[in-house]
Amino acid sequence: MSSILKQRVRYQPYLKKLRTAEECVSLFKHGQYLGWSGFTGVGAPKAIPTALADHVEKNNLQGKLGFNLFVGASAGPEESRWAENSMILRRSPHQVGKPIAAAINDGRTQFFDKHLSMFPQDLTYGFYTKNKPDNSNLDFTIIEATAIKEDGSIVPGPAVGASPEMLSVSNNIIIEVNTNTPSFEGLHDIDLPVNPPFRQPYPHTSADFKIGVDSIPVDPSKVVAIVETTQRDKVPPNTPSDEVSQNIAGHLIQFLEHEVAQGRLPSNLHPLQSGIGNIANAVVEGLADSNFKNLTVWTEVLQDSFLDFFSSGSLDYATATSIRLTEAGFERFYENWDEFSKKLCLRSQVVSNSPEIIRRLGVIAMNTPVEVDIYAHANSTNVMGSRMLNGLGGSADFLRNAKLSIMHTPSARPSKIDPTGVSCIVPMATHVDQTEHDLDVVVTDQGLADLRGMSPKERAVEIIKKCAHPDYQDQLMDYFNRSSFEMKKKKMLHEPHILKDAFKMHLNYQENGTMKLDNWDVKF
Amino acid sequence: MSSILKQRVRYQPYLKKLRTAEECVSLFKHGQYLGWSGFTGVGAPKAIPTALADHVEKNNLQGKLGFNLFVGASAGPEESRWAENSMILRRSPHQVGKPIAAAINDGRTQFFDKHLSMFPQDLTYGFYTKNKPDNSNLDFTIIEATAIKEDGSIVPGPAVGASPEMLSVSNNIIIEVNTNTPSFEGLHDIDLPVNPPFRQPYPHTSADFKIGVDSIPVDPSKVVAIVETTQRDKVPPNTPSDEVSQNIAGHLIQFLEHEVAQGRLPSNLHPLQSGIGNIANAVVEGLADSNFKNLTVWTEVLQDSFLDFFSSGSLDYATATSIRLTEAGFERFYENWDEFSKKLCLRSQVVSNSPEIIRRLGVIAMNTPVEVDIYAHANSTNVMGSRMLNGLGGSADFLRNAKLSIMHTPSARPSKIDPTGVSCIVPMATHVDQTEHDLDVVVTDQGLADLRGMSPKERAVEIIKKCAHPDYQDQLMDYFNRSSFEMKKKKMLHEPHILKDAFKMHLNYQENGTMKLDNWDVKF
Repeated sequence: MSSILKQRVRYQPYLKKLRTAEECVSLFKHGQYLGWSGFTGVGAPKAIPTALADHVEKNNLQGKLGFNLFVGASAGPEESRWAENSMILRRSPHQVGKPIAAAINDGRTQFFDKHLSMFPQDLTYGFYTKNKPDNSNLDFTIIEATAIKEDGSIVPGPAVGASPEMLSVSNNIIIEVNTNTPSFEGLHDIDLPVNPPFRQPYPHTSADFKIGVDSIPVDPSKVVAIVETTQRDKVPPNTPSDEVSQNIAGHLIQFLEHEVAQGRLPSNLHPLQSGIGNIANAVVEGLADSNFKNLTVWTEVLQDSFLDFFSSGSLDYATATSIRLTEAGFERFYENWDEFSKKLCLRSQVVSNSPEIIRRLGVIAMNTPVEVDIYAHANSTNVMGSRMLNGLGGSADFLRNAKLSIMHTPSARPSKIDPTGVSCIVPMATHVDQTEHDLDVVVTDQGLADLRGMSPKERAVEIIKKCAHPDYQDQLMDYFNRSSFEMKKKKMLHEPHILKDAFKMHLNYQENGTMKLDNWDVKF
Repeated sequence: MSSILKQRVRYQPYLKKLRTAEECVSLFKHGQYLGWSGFTGVGAPKAIPTALADHVEKNNLQGKLGFNLFVGASAGPEESRWAENSMILRRSPHQVGKPIAAAINDGRTQFFDKHLSMFPQDLTYGFYTKNKPDNSNLDFTIIEATAIKEDGSIVPGPAVGASPEMLSVSNNIIIEVNTNTPSFEGLHDIDLPVNPPFRQPYPHTSADFKIGVDSIPVDPSKVVAIVETTQRDKVPPNTPSDEVSQNIAGHLIQFLEHEVAQGRLPSNLHPLQSGIGNIANAVVEGLADSNFKNLTVWTEVLQDSFLDFFSSGSLDYATATSIRLTEAGFERFYENWDEFSKKLCLRSQVVSNSPEIIRRLGVIAMNTPVEVDIYAHANSTNVMGSRMLNGLGGSADFLRNAKLSIMHTPSARPSKIDPTGVSCIVPMATHVDQTEHDLDVVVTDQGLADLRGMSPKERAVEIIKKCAHPDYQDQLMDYFNRSSFEMKKKKMLHEPHILKDAFKMHLNYQENGTMKLDNWDVKF
């Protein structure tokens, strides 16, 4: 037993349950329901998932040892190995990575994505385990901890996610104590799940509000093993901002400045929510370089760019459910622990993504979709309506409840044969995750469409003119005009569509590799 | 001045501002932004809208005297007259009635529908008046009152709706005091709008929770006139339940009983939300006749059927933002005022439809869509993707946040040439207002599909088998199987669609009057 482990585990009875990951393998049976800690690729268990994957590979158990797997959002590379070995029968509520997406898109894994604020709650309601033969809830929760407190409660690492809820409904708990990362003690604020009719208001009225509970309580009798792990989180490098994303950020910051000037936002804005990816990075960079001061962030995940944002002096406080840093980012974070940890708090995803709090705080939400249509419906999940990309995540938690709901996207993306073969502005979204009733602003590298108070037809003109790539503006306006003409005749002119043409851009892409049509009369 | 008016208006300075509706006409100019009280056809102003419509008709001002009109939800027959006279340039967030729908669907009225919980808030943010030349908010709010208290505050009638927010941002206020309905004093509970960053938690933890403010405060200096009106609300007769809706209600009550037996709901359920229409009526009748006791209701509108529900003894308390009764229903309500008013509270729509409170209470939400697709996306607003029916209303406020989100619909509806010419279960919804991430249960006269924890492909099989009309089961399963086969080849099998076929049932209906296809290869 390492001395650092003894130091980290301050509740002695757990030390008697110290096992190797390999010793735990026999606990796991085909078809069990498992919860993992973790969110956006950090804070997930590592040793036991690896031991189980080794076991499956060594004994050719692919398809014979599979699980119903629930993780707050995405886990790390261990999840990819499980997917490659057909160890994931069912998965929710989010995932990232080629192997797991491949398993979903060829039918080996039954995946359902659910609003990240709702998933943990619905799990505790028994909704996702209602078909279990033994009528119990989760068989095991495997949680990564960075410390155990004297009362046996768990100090997570860089993600809280759905762990509090999973632990509350799990028959058995295994704790992986990571002794190769510093203890994150003091960085978390944990709201415990309470279900209706006994649920009380969340008291949060600002980004830095804390309940004051900094570890997750568990029933020690349910802890069947603790395992030491020394594997750090491995997050791939961030996509740097580029000209397109910087243009998007520029339009966005100009818009926010205008809102302040008009008196619709205070000079330090409202708490910001920002997603993952190069547009999000460009926006954060742009904000750090802007004249905005005393900003706060209420979001679900923080990336490396936030370290610079903190250092710029513009950001007073940030809260999320996970801090997803690269290895270099974590090093910088640990080295400046005192500086960063004062300005940071990690919460359960039911709180970080809470509609209640998001609406109360007036959050400014910014997300990237697959595509947006001319009437402002957005597809966040399914390419061509069918192929799962990453899942819904918290996009709808935020966009549905924010004061300002903003979708930012490149106006076009390259296809194999055409540098602008995919228009991100389409006549009709092939899958709708965010409705026209949810979005206030659409912004691309071309410009920003402020849709507030507009009817669908007004929105279409605004989006096509301001946001569509020039290669597609005439084609989209042609669709809109043809649809308006036809629907005017039929007295159906609220949100004009010609259903037989609505997906022709997508069909042309599937057949000819570009969304550019010869004309709208082409048949498929 | 009538003696009853003097009795009702307990703030003397208003009596000096008593005018006839006709005297107020000259205050109104083309292009002004107006707020009306009212919600679901009750509690809206009557005298002034009528005087303005008379003025337009008499002077042939159609199209020359038009307004940007905001009402909490739908207003009464006066709104229809305005629509017929092209007096509504822009309208939000909801409407009901043929003339207003006609104006929207032939392009005379720019309509945008917005979640009913968000509309009043976004109005106070200035989002919907941001293009006004004078940079102010509403020019006038016309509100129906049933009494005025000593401090000048307003006691509304059968609807609170968006009145508190409208009054808070209105340059001028006109109060129509209705002396032909009893005073509703004591029936309301008013939360005043407070915007971020100062907004506090809503403290409501049960359906009968009251803040204790029973009238809407106003700045008396903004009250430019009061007008006496004696016109009662006129609500069309309710659609009675029939065999189809009773079958739906039967499946639903059986499901709720099962949830109680499984321990996922308490024996008195959670607060119920129910919509308008014959299915909602059948559900309420079914609940009144069931073994459930001590029920509560947290909803946006109460109909006549709730009077029987109260009388049955099963319903302990109900709260909404409007009580939309027929004239006979109101008579019964007034005659038994003491009995009903103890068990009833009317609130602002931002509270009745609050995501925060709906989620906290674990509401059971039930709504009727236009159509639901095999993956559980629902269209609540736009027929054939284009034609506005009534608007979104509060459907997404409730379905997005409820503990159990239930869509109930007939499995099929008649077309002109075919008694089952329209399937309410379709391959792909032509407009999406509720996403697959929001719905737990779909129920038709055929049966109930419990979708919790299911992947999209599992949902499709469940919905087609349990909910689709037998005339469409094979056709829908054929679509699903063909799509699965094609998308399996392309490794896009998460939510399989063949985009060129997805709307063929709708296209066939448009061209041939029925959704029954000869085969899936037919071209349009």
